[in-house]
Amino acid sequence: MTDSTNSGNRRQVFIVSDGTAITADTLARSILTQFPDIDFHQTRLPFINTVDKAQEAASQINQMEKEDGVRPIIFTTFVDPDIMRTFNEHVSGHIIDLFRKFVGPLETELGTKSVHSVGQSHRIVDDERYNRRIAAIDYTLTHDDGQTNRGLDEADVILVGVSRSGKTPTSLFLAMQFALKVANYPLIPEDFDRHTLPEALLPLRHKLFGLSIRPERLSEIRNERRPNSRYASLENCREEIQNAENLMAREGIRWLNSTTKSIEEISATIISELGLDKRRVS
Amino acid sequence: MTDSTNSGNRRQVFIVSDGTAITADTLARSILTQFPDIDFHQTRLPFINTVDKAQEAASQINQMEKEDGVRPIIFTTFVDPDIMRTFNEHVSGHIIDLFRKFVGPLETELGTKSVHSVGQSHRIVDDERYNRRIAAIDYTLTHDDGQTNRGLDEADVILVGVSRSGKTPTSLFLAMQFALKVANYPLIPEDFDRHTLPEALLPLRHKLFGLSIRPERLSEIRNERRPNSRYASLENCREEIQNAENLMAREGIRWLNSTTKSIEEISATIISELGLDKRRVS
Repeated sequence: MTDSTNSGNRRQVFIVSDGTAITADTLARSILTQFPDIDFHQTRLPFINTVDKAQEAASQINQMEKEDGVRPIIFTTFVDPDIMRTFNEHVSGHIIDLFRKFVGPLETELGTKSVHSVGQSHRIVDDERYNRRIAAIDYTLTHDDGQTNRGLDEADVILVGVSRSGKTPTSLFLAMQFALKVANYPLIPEDFDRHTLPEALLPLRHKLFGLSIRPERLSEIRNERRPNSRYASLENCREEIQNAENLMAREGIRWLNSTTKSIEEISATIISELGLDKRRVS
Repeated sequence: MTDSTNSGNRRQVFIVSDGTAITADTLARSILTQFPDIDFHQTRLPFINTVDKAQEAASQINQMEKEDGVRPIIFTTFVDPDIMRTFNEHVSGHIIDLFRKFVGPLETELGTKSVHSVGQSHRIVDDERYNRRIAAIDYTLTHDDGQTNRGLDEADVILVGVSRSGKTPTSLFLAMQFALKVANYPLIPEDFDRHTLPEALLPLRHKLFGLSIRPERLSEIRNERRPNSRYASLENCREEIQNAENLMAREGIRWLNSTTKSIEEISATIISELGLDKRRVS
């Protein structure tokens, strides 16, 4: 938390949208992390979808500015031009309008007008795409942690790695964000003893991707779950990881070390490595 | 798929970044859905993080333009100025530079320079935040579908609703995107017979949020899982939903109808209704 001594580095940030504000939130975070010395305090104001609400939001932000004494940064993604105009007229602060700047020039480039309808991006405009996404999440949950081999051949990706190497969060992110069906399969001591992949995976080798992790970090993570167990001991983690990496190398499975990578980075790398990149938006 | 007759409405879109390209992807989708008549074909080019790769990416895009005969739309989020300059010099097409437009003016507003370091937004810059997110996903998976009442009081949100009303995908999205611990709890015929909430939920009423759904849609979804079952029949879906809505009304639980809403819209509404909106970014 901040105290009065560093209030010069403190900034209020508002994310204002007539939709969910999630798009604005994502881009705002990307832009603001380029300024790590500033202590940003962020407030989301989603669903500002009437002229009245726009006036209220503007007043709330102006009030904050008065109390704070510093100009707030305001990220907006208004699609409705009337609501946007009202908001802009009433608010002070540094406005970063994420849509308007690009939509105008795009209208010229594409030779057509935009539809000005709110929240298209997170509306169910495309039932088929939406159903695919829900089906991907269902599939991924059912095929978490090697729970079943049924329908394993339907997977777009099968992640392998030792327990707690990051397979589950990555699988869920790939399903949620990219509508990919992801199975994940733990590599366990029995696999290492047999010196081979689990049998169910052998015909699906081209879909496999491995996650590895630094032993120290794995031990830390496992200790949170089962403190002072052999499972969590650094020695055991070292051994499992060494065995898993040997197995993956021998079987020709691509893998990456997840230790310092975010779920997004791991996911984007997998998509890129497995050539799942091309995708249609309509 | 497109055929030659509507090729005038077809556009190649490239999402190019020195990071994961996920931020650019999100904003690109928001902007492009404003043009529903155009048939966009999207290619992601993440991790373009050297000058050489930038030249290659530019050539690839130029080649596509030559084959296609139409100017591609190119969304970029380059943080590194040299890579960006190289890319921009070599590529033709309509470039939408999502960072540069805003970072410059922000530097002036904040009186400080940005760090120009790649992929900050999806790097693990903040271990604490990252660990919170992983913990939230773990919690949410463990508390899916009323699996356990252990630690239920730690939940930020507890979703309730009939089976297949959208609780699980919403829970996972809230955990993944907002690092919220979400439990979800099915409302089942026994609850309706007893005319009361499951006992474990009674002291946690302020954390509850309900999802309802149109009976026709629910029946459709359930039929995919268990075709022609009583569980999936329209009559049974109608009855369960009516009972669930009566129960939620009687218990004073806020709820929304998820039928025409995306996971993002449902999530943003819940956050807004339960006042979980304020959050710090640093």
